[in-house]
Amino acid sequence: MTLPPPGSVVAPVARVGVEAPLGVFDSGLGGLTVVRALRERLPHENIIYLGDNARVPYGTRSPETIIRYALSCARELSERGVKALVVACNTVSAVALDRLRAELDLPVTGVIVPGARAATRAAGEGTVGVLGTLGTISSGAYTRAVASFSSRTEVLGQAAPLLVALAEEGWTEGEVPRLVVRKYLSAFFAPEEAEGFGLPRSAKVGCVVLGCTHFPLFRELIEHEIRELGGRGIPVVDSAQQTALEFEEFLITRGLCALRTEPGTLQLLVTDKPKSFESVASRFLGSSVPAVEQVDLKPC
Amino acid sequence: MTLPPPGSVVAPVARVGVEAPLGVFDSGLGGLTVVRALRERLPHENIIYLGDNARVPYGTRSPETIIRYALSCARELSERGVKALVVACNTVSAVALDRLRAELDLPVTGVIVPGARAATRAAGEGTVGVLGTLGTISSGAYTRAVASFSSRTEVLGQAAPLLVALAEEGWTEGEVPRLVVRKYLSAFFAPEEAEGFGLPRSAKVGCVVLGCTHFPLFRELIEHEIRELGGRGIPVVDSAQQTALEFEEFLITRGLCALRTEPGTLQLLVTDKPKSFESVASRFLGSSVPAVEQVDLKPC
Repeated sequence: MTLPPPGSVVAPVARVGVEAPLGVFDSGLGGLTVVRALRERLPHENIIYLGDNARVPYGTRSPETIIRYALSCARELSERGVKALVVACNTVSAVALDRLRAELDLPVTGVIVPGARAATRAAGEGTVGVLGTLGTISSGAYTRAVASFSSRTEVLGQAAPLLVALAEEGWTEGEVPRLVVRKYLSAFFAPEEAEGFGLPRSAKVGCVVLGCTHFPLFRELIEHEIRELGGRGIPVVDSAQQTALEFEEFLITRGLCALRTEPGTLQLLVTDKPKSFESVASRFLGSSVPAVEQVDLKPC
Repeated sequence: MTLPPPGSVVAPVARVGVEAPLGVFDSGLGGLTVVRALRERLPHENIIYLGDNARVPYGTRSPETIIRYALSCARELSERGVKALVVACNTVSAVALDRLRAELDLPVTGVIVPGARAATRAAGEGTVGVLGTLGTISSGAYTRAVASFSSRTEVLGQAAPLLVALAEEGWTEGEVPRLVVRKYLSAFFAPEEAEGFGLPRSAKVGCVVLGCTHFPLFRELIEHEIRELGGRGIPVVDSAQQTALEFEEFLITRGLCALRTEPGTLQLLVTDKPKSFESVASRFLGSSVPAVEQVDLKPC
């Protein structure tokens, strides 16, 4: 298996200075796990985050609708003078990345290629198991991305929409999330348990990808249930962390890192209900949450 | 306790003939449980159903956004010549009904007043327990509606968003939906079980209202868990069935029933992914599903 050099970030000439903020967007809250990973790796960068929670979730919508929504988010951030764009949403990364790159004069990265690259390495001779939204899984984006790194590595996707609902409600511990995680993972490890639930039969997986930005909230539970299902030692790949890692490399090699020494700022924008967003954002961000501002997006 | 005469349907002079279809709309699939109840009571009526699934769910959005979405749905149906409008969505009924009546020259009914009227009767001396979306519960609409029927009856609301996610995934049987139902119901029957989950402490409930159109799919499970929690004999009130009942009375008393003798037709419109809608609609409709047509709504 040979891995090509990083190609997840397509970079036109930067129009703005290195001190300009990074733009990050998602359909709602989930992308804050990517912001968290970015801030850990790039603590001096200013970040503007846009959560399009008036139209959440994207994961169940058609490709045409997702592209239209993604363009309106990206244009809002572009007009605010960001130096690069991180699409912190698996669904948009799966469906709209090429279109965003074609329409914007900015470097744009998604979360799928970094996740797929790490997964291809981690799976060894095994299959890559991906948990994601229905939109991400049915797009086949992880399958295509993994195939671009290794023609011999297979991908098995499992849509796990209930984990999104559980994360948004803060129900991340206890018997219900454990049983939900187990049911979804059984597609990878115990196909006989999956019978009757419409889940696919499984090959042996070599790693499990958290292919939705909500899923890091269940990481420990997922690792526990993998062990319970006989998968001890099978690694979990977090697309958010891999994206931050590759994006850091990209900024360094292009000389695009901010030069300031003080901590970077975080600005949070949403399209609906800022107070409600503020109250649950810390669960995803892993730190205190600044005031959240509501914006109206121009239709695309 | 005295109940005022039916007032849930506000009726301007009908602009169209009695053979015109009924218009029914919801944010997605759930309203099909109301269509099912309407077709059982009014088998000769033609029905046009509009599911605004490009923008589902409404339940988590702000009142301003919900009103804007509801107006665009209502105008689409009005332009198709419906004789009356049923808002088959608790969230829209909670937030946008007055505005729809002000803007449309049509009789308009929602699902909350019929549900609240039946619940006030059913609760006797007890409290009315309502399961709904976050939007419906936080709107306080059931509390206001019950108060209009009885000043002595209290209402305890419990947001149950996971039941929506489970219904849409078809996961309506087994341990996970049972535990989720039990956790939500414990707010009504066993507040000590609800501790640590942010659920409110409870008074003794006299009935439980299915205050979301998705929840009739869990009716048997809810009835079972009410018994398990020591609530044997406590009735479950289905807002969809109550709405169909009051709407039938309204059509009869106003002479608005269709005169045809053949079975009524059903036309299904959606704003996104008609094939996907078609494949899961029968679960809610309880019968076979006609071809689903995609429409673009004009913005409001």
